[in-house]
Amino acid sequence: MEAIKQEFSVAYQYSVFFTEHLFDTNNKLLFNVLTDLTSTSSSKTFFVIDEGVVQHHPELPQKIRQYFNQHPSLPALCADPLLIPGGEQCKNDETFCQRILEAVNRYGIDRHSFVIAIGGGALLDLAGYAAAIAHRGVRHIRIPTTVLSQNDSGVGVKNGINAFGKKNFLGTFVPPVAVLNDFDFLRTLHIRDWRSGIAEAIKVALIKDEPFFRSIEANAVALATRDMESMKELIHHCARLHMDHISGGGDPFEKGSSRPLDFGHWSAHKLEQMSDYRLRHGEAVVIGMAVDVTYSTLKGLLPQEDGARILSLFQRLGFRFYDPLLMQHLDSENRSRSVLAGLREFREHLGGQLTITLLNGIGKGIEVHEMDEELLLKAIKFLGSASVQEQANVTC
Amino acid sequence: MEAIKQEFSVAYQYSVFFTEHLFDTNNKLLFNVLTDLTSTSSSKTFFVIDEGVVQHHPELPQKIRQYFNQHPSLPALCADPLLIPGGEQCKNDETFCQRILEAVNRYGIDRHSFVIAIGGGALLDLAGYAAAIAHRGVRHIRIPTTVLSQNDSGVGVKNGINAFGKKNFLGTFVPPVAVLNDFDFLRTLHIRDWRSGIAEAIKVALIKDEPFFRSIEANAVALATRDMESMKELIHHCARLHMDHISGGGDPFEKGSSRPLDFGHWSAHKLEQMSDYRLRHGEAVVIGMAVDVTYSTLKGLLPQEDGARILSLFQRLGFRFYDPLLMQHLDSENRSRSVLAGLREFREHLGGQLTITLLNGIGKGIEVHEMDEELLLKAIKFLGSASVQEQANVTC
Repeated sequence: MEAIKQEFSVAYQYSVFFTEHLFDTNNKLLFNVLTDLTSTSSSKTFFVIDEGVVQHHPELPQKIRQYFNQHPSLPALCADPLLIPGGEQCKNDETFCQRILEAVNRYGIDRHSFVIAIGGGALLDLAGYAAAIAHRGVRHIRIPTTVLSQNDSGVGVKNGINAFGKKNFLGTFVPPVAVLNDFDFLRTLHIRDWRSGIAEAIKVALIKDEPFFRSIEANAVALATRDMESMKELIHHCARLHMDHISGGGDPFEKGSSRPLDFGHWSAHKLEQMSDYRLRHGEAVVIGMAVDVTYSTLKGLLPQEDGARILSLFQRLGFRFYDPLLMQHLDSENRSRSVLAGLREFREHLGGQLTITLLNGIGKGIEVHEMDEELLLKAIKFLGSASVQEQANVTC
Repeated sequence: MEAIKQEFSVAYQYSVFFTEHLFDTNNKLLFNVLTDLTSTSSSKTFFVIDEGVVQHHPELPQKIRQYFNQHPSLPALCADPLLIPGGEQCKNDETFCQRILEAVNRYGIDRHSFVIAIGGGALLDLAGYAAAIAHRGVRHIRIPTTVLSQNDSGVGVKNGINAFGKKNFLGTFVPPVAVLNDFDFLRTLHIRDWRSGIAEAIKVALIKDEPFFRSIEANAVALATRDMESMKELIHHCARLHMDHISGGGDPFEKGSSRPLDFGHWSAHKLEQMSDYRLRHGEAVVIGMAVDVTYSTLKGLLPQEDGARILSLFQRLGFRFYDPLLMQHLDSENRSRSVLAGLREFREHLGGQLTITLLNGIGKGIEVHEMDEELLLKAIKFLGSASVQEQANVTC
């Protein structure tokens, strides 16, 4: 009996908007976006907000209410916002996912309604995941409040939560219907979060955009001292590069093995977990990139002066490119608990052949399919001593 | 600052194959399919099997092992099959989903590995869901073992489990990478399951294919008496219609409100739940279609003789088109617990405007956006008395 072949394509589109003071009643952005996306009069709106954001912006829930009161044609708020603690903890504890799903059930939030999440990358990952699996997908709008989520994770197509001690073990590829970047949220960020997001911009510059790397170098002091205009430019450029990679890379839902946007991430994910999430994602990514940059130079792929230039940029931005966790459990007996286990977990998570992006120039990623453990150890030791030296310099 | 617009498409393709004795070592189908789909030497294979299938085919796990031993180039079995009770209970109890996820974690099943599920529609929905959310999507192959799953749910793009007492509250749209229909499994089906799957074939015939309806009428006796050749034809034709609707309907992931393949389903889903899943899905769909067919005639959309012809076909196939549950809680006080609540839940699940498919001819679906509750009650009462009359005829 003849086989039946199925073939179809699914088209996705969404925009990332940039604004300030999104919920000021005279700011029309949210009104326009929601009006454009609303297909039926029975649609509702439900907000999930990062508790950390509300701590710094206690007026936020009230402003949202006022905004919707002022614009009665918008899909009505079906309940008070659900507040959830931000940061990795909300992805580690499955009860938070459950709480969002319960709200979807209790308030009759349907596939044409909107779950709008306001917060950092972790909260957005969680809310996006819950929205994606409820009713096989409720419409989801992201309002990222950190540099990292505004220029990287929040503008992409993934969501997820952690399980079995593994980052993003559960998740889906489901794009949001819109992303609204409100720069005003960045003003109240802790300096570690302000800085952390710059890591992903350096990442995308290193693998594909040398002029962007130079502009980050040129603006390093401004960025480190919280100059908003420099940060806006960095976020806009980085978000565009990230999105162009997704749409232009030919594999938006990552069916293959190539994953250049995960440069530096195999060890970063492991370090975050080993540190019990003491390390912010961006901080771990800097360390992870430092490892792979140094490995690239030791491997003869990247000129030494480029490696030094990259580490120097990390320092000028206030990053540490080394953490003692890198040295933990490296004896051969315990190596499966060391950062090196990140290679195996990374391969398992992505599937297929191990594919690691290294550099053979600034702005030039190159993929390799195996990593030399001894050379990796050498890279780690190099970073350890470079870091001691740097700290000594600071002390002097 | 200029908004960034994201646009891309994701292409999907998979085939539905037809065979018998899939795991006979000289049957090359699975070997060829897996070989074609395997992209890396580290891929693994893991089976999830419906306990009911193993009860009727106790040799199955052993045959699978032999098959993989015989074909060592295939992605290796990473563990014994996971046996899970089939039927709706496996979608109701979240521990079964958890067990599959635990296996994915324990055996290091990655995104290029295969979770192959063998079973009825419920087990396939569950396994497909677990595979879809683990690592943001492990490759999934379906081996449907019931008429219903071979001609309808198993060849489509949805998966899901139940939550909050609601069918498919959690789920995703993620196509399998292949579907292998082995007719041999149908021989051991309970007569209720054999029959049940015919319901979805009648459904798709009623909404879009009058000649197919006539062929089911012509083969009613053969189908009711388990003639395998008639059943094979029915399954192949129905699967093709179902798949053509997904790829040709312009909305494979159901972003809009139109859902003709859910003809008769608003009440069917509710009846299944009200019956504590005593009613099989296909049995409930027949009752649901009978309600909407009768409503269509009372509404003047469908000629009465067509309505009678449809009910008569149900009877000849051995279906009951009425269940006392239809009359439960219909007093106005308790109506929110009655079958009529299915309308609201259906709208909520699909989202958007209420869109119900009715008939204005055999083979001609028509969408309406409201249902007249009093006319529905009339339809239900009509079915009640028609059913009493029918039972009296049988008794005589």
